[in-house]
Amino acid sequence: MANNIYIRGVGTIPYGIHYKQSHLLAYDAIYKALEDADMSINEIDAVVCSTLEWFYTGEFQRHFPSILSSILKKRVPIIRVPAACSGGGVALCTAKDLCLSGGFNNVLVVGVEKLHGNTKNSECITNEFMMAAESVWEQQEGLNFPAGNALIAQAYLKEFPDTTMDDLALISLKNHENAYLNENAFFYNKKIEIEQIKSSPIVCSPLRLFDCSISVDGAAACIITKDKTDIKIIGSAYQTDYLPPFERDRITTWDASLGASEDAYKQAKLSPDDIDIAEVHDAFTIVELIAYEDLGFCKKGDGARMIRDGVVKIDGKLPVNTSGGLKAKGHPVSATGIGQIYELVKQLRKEAGDRQVSKAKIALAQNIGGAGGSVAVHILKKIGG
Amino acid sequence: MANNIYIRGVGTIPYGIHYKQSHLLAYDAIYKALEDADMSINEIDAVVCSTLEWFYTGEFQRHFPSILSSILKKRVPIIRVPAACSGGGVALCTAKDLCLSGGFNNVLVVGVEKLHGNTKNSECITNEFMMAAESVWEQQEGLNFPAGNALIAQAYLKEFPDTTMDDLALISLKNHENAYLNENAFFYNKKIEIEQIKSSPIVCSPLRLFDCSISVDGAAACIITKDKTDIKIIGSAYQTDYLPPFERDRITTWDASLGASEDAYKQAKLSPDDIDIAEVHDAFTIVELIAYEDLGFCKKGDGARMIRDGVVKIDGKLPVNTSGGLKAKGHPVSATGIGQIYELVKQLRKEAGDRQVSKAKIALAQNIGGAGGSVAVHILKKIGG
Repeated sequence: MANNIYIRGVGTIPYGIHYKQSHLLAYDAIYKALEDADMSINEIDAVVCSTLEWFYTGEFQRHFPSILSSILKKRVPIIRVPAACSGGGVALCTAKDLCLSGGFNNVLVVGVEKLHGNTKNSECITNEFMMAAESVWEQQEGLNFPAGNALIAQAYLKEFPDTTMDDLALISLKNHENAYLNENAFFYNKKIEIEQIKSSPIVCSPLRLFDCSISVDGAAACIITKDKTDIKIIGSAYQTDYLPPFERDRITTWDASLGASEDAYKQAKLSPDDIDIAEVHDAFTIVELIAYEDLGFCKKGDGARMIRDGVVKIDGKLPVNTSGGLKAKGHPVSATGIGQIYELVKQLRKEAGDRQVSKAKIALAQNIGGAGGSVAVHILKKIGG
Repeated sequence: MANNIYIRGVGTIPYGIHYKQSHLLAYDAIYKALEDADMSINEIDAVVCSTLEWFYTGEFQRHFPSILSSILKKRVPIIRVPAACSGGGVALCTAKDLCLSGGFNNVLVVGVEKLHGNTKNSECITNEFMMAAESVWEQQEGLNFPAGNALIAQAYLKEFPDTTMDDLALISLKNHENAYLNENAFFYNKKIEIEQIKSSPIVCSPLRLFDCSISVDGAAACIITKDKTDIKIIGSAYQTDYLPPFERDRITTWDASLGASEDAYKQAKLSPDDIDIAEVHDAFTIVELIAYEDLGFCKKGDGARMIRDGVVKIDGKLPVNTSGGLKAKGHPVSATGIGQIYELVKQLRKEAGDRQVSKAKIALAQNIGGAGGSVAVHILKKIGG
């Protein structure tokens, strides 16, 4: 499939704790993207948005497209595509298909999540997150996402005993070092030392607190278009897999990640070697390690070498999560996938300030929902100088 | 935009109270559609589904695409597009765009809603429905959907004093007469008399119980394809409008309904006079009356004549809601829009049994979310004899 779809503008709000309602957070990101694109809202033909319906935050809104219509004063098709933590990536994928369908020229894509609300009860948030897991053997048994990913880490460490928790700590450290430089990151300007990471409390063995990403409020937006710009979407794929990991043949490789990335590479006519920079879905450090392998950046079992040898550091051959990733920039669920695109566009345009990488023409974003139940992969190319 | 997209198969389950979980209801409708299409699940390239996330039903599932992957054993893109009560129509519209984008040949579309669950508390269901309304002036003030539509009915009756509640009762009666003949309707084989309707309890003045649709569990599916079949989608449009009616210039005409139908007629190169049969979104009888006008079947203010003169009856010139409509077939929220397509395909193919209309080549479906916040309109054409 020939993709002649481009990105014209990107916008984000700083990730953190916000006191506005989610549609107002979305509004702020949307207007930053419009400003970046030098466009008026009147030029937008359709909107694809992603957000979940949290109950305990007290917003009680499940007709989000119509709320966007109200605040944007736009009567156009506005489609909502929630997909657990992969909502942002799925929104971009869907928006690209709307453009390719021939019906729309400029499509606004926005992801937003407001997690912190009326409740002070963190158990509520945990229960809500668990709604993205299987109901009987996972939810009822208390296998929340830290626990599920701990099992995956245990399986990985058993299968590849050369890899240790120290390697995962290095991934966490790298992402904190990057977030230190990112003014939109939750951990911006906060110095985290390796000993802090290694001595942080065990959440679910072997994962410690600093192996887990941080859930934050956030919003990010981008505008895609059929008009040529300097950023082209050369690969865009989404694959859904079985819901619970226990239904799959293996848990140390995520098939939807393999499937979506193979499809995206094929569209781009590129191989993993051609990728200059990537944002991957480090909901837990083990997930980033597996991403190196599933995306073809190294052989299966060699993930730890990527971090030990500094390949994925900001000055390495293939910088990964220069934004700070979900770990340290933060993970506002449905906004995360669009936030990755924001970072990559800024890097490709050489607008990434203190965290600018030295050369990057081809960029990849991987956005995961659940424990590999949904994966979206996008490949972007900088056109011209 | 040239639409060369066809419908190959349709399936539904009977609407009512079901004791299976929502993904199993979806499964049943999907396999009926596959059987109708004489296809294997292996031939499906992508799935677009629509369902909400009800909390009080006790399902606690917000990663529905991945659940479908599990039960269908399909690793393909599965996208979820909830849109309050218009979810089914929006799913079909999105699926059509996926087909037109060039990436997919056969797309399965499924809408499902499970409203009756662990709770016996009808207040819970009312609160959940209200999440599709505006939060401060509507939800907080208790303006639920019966109340909101009662205000619309009051405004209409004031603007067009020739129209009376007796006219709305005739709409209710017609839909019950049709549902009497529909084995998939909640009110199948149940005789409802006009006096029962007129003497039913006031829910919110002027609307009585029999002016309101019935919320039920249900699922419906269809398969759309680029391969030519006997049912072509010649118009497919979706428009979003401001969330609360009070933000709009007028409430007795729904702008998103005007916008979506104008777009669909333009695509089909047809006028309202060309429509032979329609399924419209009669969440309340007043909504069906306004639909006659907004869809161009009659002039503004003349809606009552359509029912008084029998035009919209099953043996009239333009039968409307031969299925029984939301009123009497039932309204399983996200399934409703696909259920309308099921009815129209059956009618166009002359497979509608006791409720078969005498001639129908061109059919229209109108599916509304909220009080006009989202509207999808589809026009289908029977190809050949």
